[in-house]
Amino acid sequence: MTRGPAPAEPEPVRPEPVRPEPVRLERLARAALSWLAEPGDVQLGALLRTCSPGAIVAALTAGSWPPGEAGGPAIPGLNRALQRWSARLGEMPTQLTMDAWERAGIRLLCPGDPGWPSQLAVLGDGCPWALWVRGSADLRFACLRSVSIVGTRAATGYGIHVCAELAAALAERGWAVVSGGAFGIDGWAHRGALSAEGVTVAVLASGLDDPYPRGHHELFQAIAARGALVSERPPGRTPTRPWFLVRNRLIAALSRGTVVVEAALRSGALNTARHARELHRPLMAVPGPVTSTASAGCHLAIREWGAECVTGAADVLGQLSFGVEEVASWRSGPVLPRDELDPVSRSVLEAVPARTGWGPARIAVSAGVDFDTVMRCLGQLAAGGYVERSARGWRIRPLG
Amino acid sequence: MTRGPAPAEPEPVRPEPVRPEPVRLERLARAALSWLAEPGDVQLGALLRTCSPGAIVAALTAGSWPPGEAGGPAIPGLNRALQRWSARLGEMPTQLTMDAWERAGIRLLCPGDPGWPSQLAVLGDGCPWALWVRGSADLRFACLRSVSIVGTRAATGYGIHVCAELAAALAERGWAVVSGGAFGIDGWAHRGALSAEGVTVAVLASGLDDPYPRGHHELFQAIAARGALVSERPPGRTPTRPWFLVRNRLIAALSRGTVVVEAALRSGALNTARHARELHRPLMAVPGPVTSTASAGCHLAIREWGAECVTGAADVLGQLSFGVEEVASWRSGPVLPRDELDPVSRSVLEAVPARTGWGPARIAVSAGVDFDTVMRCLGQLAAGGYVERSARGWRIRPLG
Repeated sequence: MTRGPAPAEPEPVRPEPVRPEPVRLERLARAALSWLAEPGDVQLGALLRTCSPGAIVAALTAGSWPPGEAGGPAIPGLNRALQRWSARLGEMPTQLTMDAWERAGIRLLCPGDPGWPSQLAVLGDGCPWALWVRGSADLRFACLRSVSIVGTRAATGYGIHVCAELAAALAERGWAVVSGGAFGIDGWAHRGALSAEGVTVAVLASGLDDPYPRGHHELFQAIAARGALVSERPPGRTPTRPWFLVRNRLIAALSRGTVVVEAALRSGALNTARHARELHRPLMAVPGPVTSTASAGCHLAIREWGAECVTGAADVLGQLSFGVEEVASWRSGPVLPRDELDPVSRSVLEAVPARTGWGPARIAVSAGVDFDTVMRCLGQLAAGGYVERSARGWRIRPLG
Repeated sequence: MTRGPAPAEPEPVRPEPVRPEPVRLERLARAALSWLAEPGDVQLGALLRTCSPGAIVAALTAGSWPPGEAGGPAIPGLNRALQRWSARLGEMPTQLTMDAWERAGIRLLCPGDPGWPSQLAVLGDGCPWALWVRGSADLRFACLRSVSIVGTRAATGYGIHVCAELAAALAERGWAVVSGGAFGIDGWAHRGALSAEGVTVAVLASGLDDPYPRGHHELFQAIAARGALVSERPPGRTPTRPWFLVRNRLIAALSRGTVVVEAALRSGALNTARHARELHRPLMAVPGPVTSTASAGCHLAIREWGAECVTGAADVLGQLSFGVEEVASWRSGPVLPRDELDPVSRSVLEAVPARTGWGPARIAVSAGVDFDTVMRCLGQLAAGGYVERSARGWRIRPLG
């Protein structure tokens, strides 16, 4: 058995969809907010329910609050939050720096974008307002059939073996493996998925221009080639310890279920496990020797937190309500039955070409819907396994 | 740490309670039935609800059925059962042989005897009608605070270590360890308890004159010295494979909970685990490496059968609703509060001397109750930790 990063492939160049000016400005505002506010800032999350990102950034820059109509929404702690955000206006990078990141393949993903993982809505006001992504995978599509595999950095030989085997077996069955890119279990989860030529997603606490830990530089290159590196943090930020805990909620929220392979009683992996439990996502743990402190957190999760005791990929898929047989057939077909698509999505689907690849504007004309609608529908259809985005544009996803 | 059988001690000579003649004959009849019928024979169990053992044996010997009034109880399959039992009348041992067994310390225990483990009533018609016992422990008293530890004969080094540690830790906290006396996990459960100078009970499928397996001869001597060997089978019988499965229900029924330490997917220990589950006794399993087939049955029990994942004695006692603190204090005092005793038991308790030791007849006179009542109450009081039977008779159990 050989386990290790697959050779890095050049990242495909994606034609950026043509966006109307207001959409472009909103995206820039979300990028700015990722510098100004901390991920998971619930004051900002609450504010975004009623104010547009552009209005918030404009008001902060002008030093005039509230934006728009007098009064603004009543959010506890908002005044202190405004001070926090304003204090960072000087940290914003120049347009030249941002252009360099974009050339390096670090793209901004915003709610409503085709690849936006809509399952993050489960985080409520703690939902990210933007994600930075590097890599070839469609994040939403990958995460819709994904499992998080997390664990301690101080992995044992047993944990490494079980982790790599589990990740490879899940990847072989068409499941993406989500983890945190750390040394130990996380790293072997990514490597296991890559060894089976599967998709893997590393959710990082650092900026993507300098992914942490640096010792995983080659692994991160391999992940970007077949999967994705994701961060709420903008490029140019180095992580502090609390960032990893904030990041863990994303790992739990992105995936359909979380497996703890090895974790000591105070391991950060148990923090991810708690998030999975709080989000009502299936929580699983791999048992190990009771004499191994690296398995003590797994046994705690099984005994106290209702984590399911899983011993391999079949158990994990069973917990996600997919038998191995079902998954084998499902891999080659769409997730949702065609009958359950809404009429607009069906008309968009009928307009998507089978082989070549069309841009969304052309599909919009053919389907007789506007641009925003076609983008929303294409995102849903991609998530559902009906269509995919190729280098030449959108097309029907081939079966098998 | 030294683990191994404690040096054998001479078994204390117990004064046999003086029993009225009808009681003696019923006991002889129960002994006879243990030759004539297979343990767990539900036809015999059902018959014993309405017919006395003496009447059944008399009718079988005379070849005249039904005993007593015409018709007898309507029990499906009774006729075939009568043929089975009658066919074995020639196998009954002579009185001389039985006397020799009694001199070897193999005593008969019947329902209603002070040491009879009344928790076996949970087995319904499958409840044994007599048990053969060898050893110094009061079976009922020992089993009221006991845990079964069972597992595969093909134990790994990991399983042996965990098993012996667990048994010793439970014994140190005043819990008896019940197991099946087999090679592997069973044997190490007994050894672990003995190493902590605790009480351990081996429930065997063989007759007690020649306990199986013979390779455990010295271990069985040590168990008899500090605990008890128990069998439903009369002396002189060598076990066949089905006997072990029938025996397993006793292990589950005698103890307050069952722990599986290591078991392959087809291990007989899982049969004991199923009995525990069916009897609604707490079922526990020790996790192990998912790469070890010897732990696969434990993980199955956790995942599919609701077994609790336990990693040590504290977890086990937690499942039995006793925290370690509670157990520490409980060890030195009675199980039940004095207030919950019925008035007759309280008057018997007041008649029991604190230091010397009285026979039951003298206690009966002092308490003003009949002999049968005093025997029943003394059994309950012993089980509750209030009184004990010393070489000189019944006395108050010293605290601590």
